Formats: sequence, C-alpha cells, structure tokens
Amino acid sequence: MKYEIRAAKEDDCKDVSRMIMELAVFEKMPDQVAISSKELQRDGFCQNPLFQCLVAEVPEEHGSKDGHTVVGYSLYFYTYSTWKGPTVYIEDLYVMPDFRRDGIGQALMTKVAQVAKEKRCVRLQLAVLDWNSPARDFYAAKGGQDLTVSQGWHFIRFDGQALEDLVLNAPKD
Amino acid sequence: MKYEIRAAKEDDCKDVSRMIMELAVFEKMPDQVAISSKELQRDGFCQNPLFQCLVAEVPEEHGSKDGHTVVGYSLYFYTYSTWKGPTVYIEDLYVMPDFRRDGIGQALMTKVAQVAKEKRCVRLQLAVLDWNSPARDFYAAKGGQDLTVSQGWHFIRFDGQALEDLVLNAPKD
Repeated sequence: MKYEIRAAKEDDCKDVSRMIMELAVFEKMPDQVAISSKELQRDGFCQNPLFQCLVAEVPEEHGSKDGHTVVGYSLYFYTYSTWKGPTVYIEDLYVMPDFRRDGIGQALMTKVAQVAKEKRCVRLQLAVLDWNSPARDFYAAKGGQDLTVSQGWHFIRFDGQALEDLVLNAPKD
Repeated sequence: MKYEIRAAKEDDCKDVSRMIMELAVFEKMPDQVAISSKELQRDGFCQNPLFQCLVAEVPEEHGSKDGHTVVGYSLYFYTYSTWKGPTVYIEDLYVMPDFRRDGIGQALMTKVAQVAKEKRCVRLQLAVLDWNSPARDFYAAKGGQDLTVSQGWHFIRFDGQALEDLVLNAPKD
C-alpha cells in the first residue's frame, strides 16, 4: 500500500489524539487519557515543542472505513544518557489495525532513527507492556534489547499525591 | 549537616562527571561511560540544553576526604506523556556514600519535584535496577510506584548496530 511518512502538522493533532485513545484502549487503560488535541497543539507546536511527531498518511481512496487517511503515528522526544550523551525516546508508536503488515510501523521507526542520527543520538529507547507480544516481537526482531529482562531496569513513577508529597517535603533552608 | 541544593553551573561538570562514574561503578557498568565533563558542558550549558542538573554542595570544612564539596547531583530532563502531558524524568540521582542519611537525596528529589510542578509536569519518572534495594526502598517509601511490577512495562533499547540497521532499513519512497 502507498503511504507517506511525514512530520505532523498542527492540523494532525485531532488524528493523533484519536489514535492516542485507540492505543490506550488496546493497552487497557483508556480512562488514563487526560489530554486532547488542544493540549497536543499547545505542547507540540510552540517555539520549544515538548515532543516531535511523525504521521503515516495514505491516499484518500485507501483511507479507513471511517474515512481517516492519517493511519499511524510516532511521538518521540529527545532525552539524555549520562553515559552516552543525546538519546531519543519513542513515547508512542501506533498503526491502525487495518493498516498493519504493510511496513508502516517499520517506516515510522526508521524515520525516527534517521532523525535521531541527525541529532547525534546514539540510542533509541521505548517502553512496552510485557503482555504485548506482537510489539515485543516486532522490536526484538529489529535488534531492540529488553533491558528490564537483561539488566533488571524497572520504571518508577511519582504522580498525584506522591508528587505533591515530594514537593511539600521540602527540607528547611 | 549543612548543605545547599542549587542549579549546576558549567564549572560543576567536572564534579558531576566524577559522580556519574562513581554511580556507574556502583551499578557495575563503569565501562559504559563514554562521555566526559566536556560533553556535559556542551550538551547542558548551551542555548537549548539537553538536560537540567542540580547539585548538592557542602561547606569546605565538611568536604569529602578527597576535598570534594559537590557531593550529590540530580540530572533530569523534560519528557511527555500522550495521556497526561508534560512530565519530568530523572536520569540520575546520586549522593556520595559518606554523605547519605542526611536527607540530601530527599532534598534533590524535592527540588526536582518543585521545578517539575512549576513546569506543569504531572509526573516524575525514573528507572532503578532490580537489585538496588536501597534505591527501590527509598523511592517506594516516598510513594513511587514500580510500573514494571504493577503494569508490566519493560525498557527496550536500540543502540550500536541495531540503531544503524533501523536507519538503513529505510522503505523505498
């Protein structure tokens, strides 16, 4: 199938927001999505954007049943390793189910890797759920190492009250 | 013990670089450290810095045996959640062994959380090694959730040849 991988434009935020929800539904956490296309526009299309985004677009005649032509996205940002220097992190990589197995996911990964290389990044990282075998197999087949398995790295998160508590536990000056 | 938590200055990079190596030795991966204070200066003290850094400093009379007064650091950067919006990620949090149990680690965490809140971040995240019980206990006691245990998130990394292969596997236009 013909498709184009390109940088997301502000107008794509509605499509990206729709697919963020589709991915959250697949990940069984749809109630966790608290931001909409408005916040994506504000945060990603300002002078110092908080993220970068690529989309995959198909011609109108090959669009989805619902008439969508933006059928995949990859949202990423630049991070930093104190051991290696600049790195890139893919927050989301998603292709709509009817458009898989055409290499669109691979093309999105490749484009992020190319951008990463241009920016001198020596690593590309992401997170995947342990029960998401198709995604784990996809990354493993491309040479991605599972650092949680091989080195024992765990994700720790503070949010809600835990984050408030951290803020308030300020030591006396 | 008296100490000050402050933003790192360019001159602190030598101390931060020394402590990055100390942390890597503790994490049993000292051969992984490929960057030095020079790269930290270049990447963190430019117009669009790739990371932020705080240091903990003690008065000269309370310095380390080797005469160091910068005895801890926290290096972090801004990330993005497609579910929640702006977030912050702590890449490293370290306090020299002789200066632990004085609340310096807590003070560094609190300062990052305060900065995060100012920047509208609703999450603070980090990674920890499964065998590093003191760190895991420290974060758990402060309300940090282990997402690898509770939700099954795994870290995936592409670097070296795997990253090169991604770049080269460009689909034909």
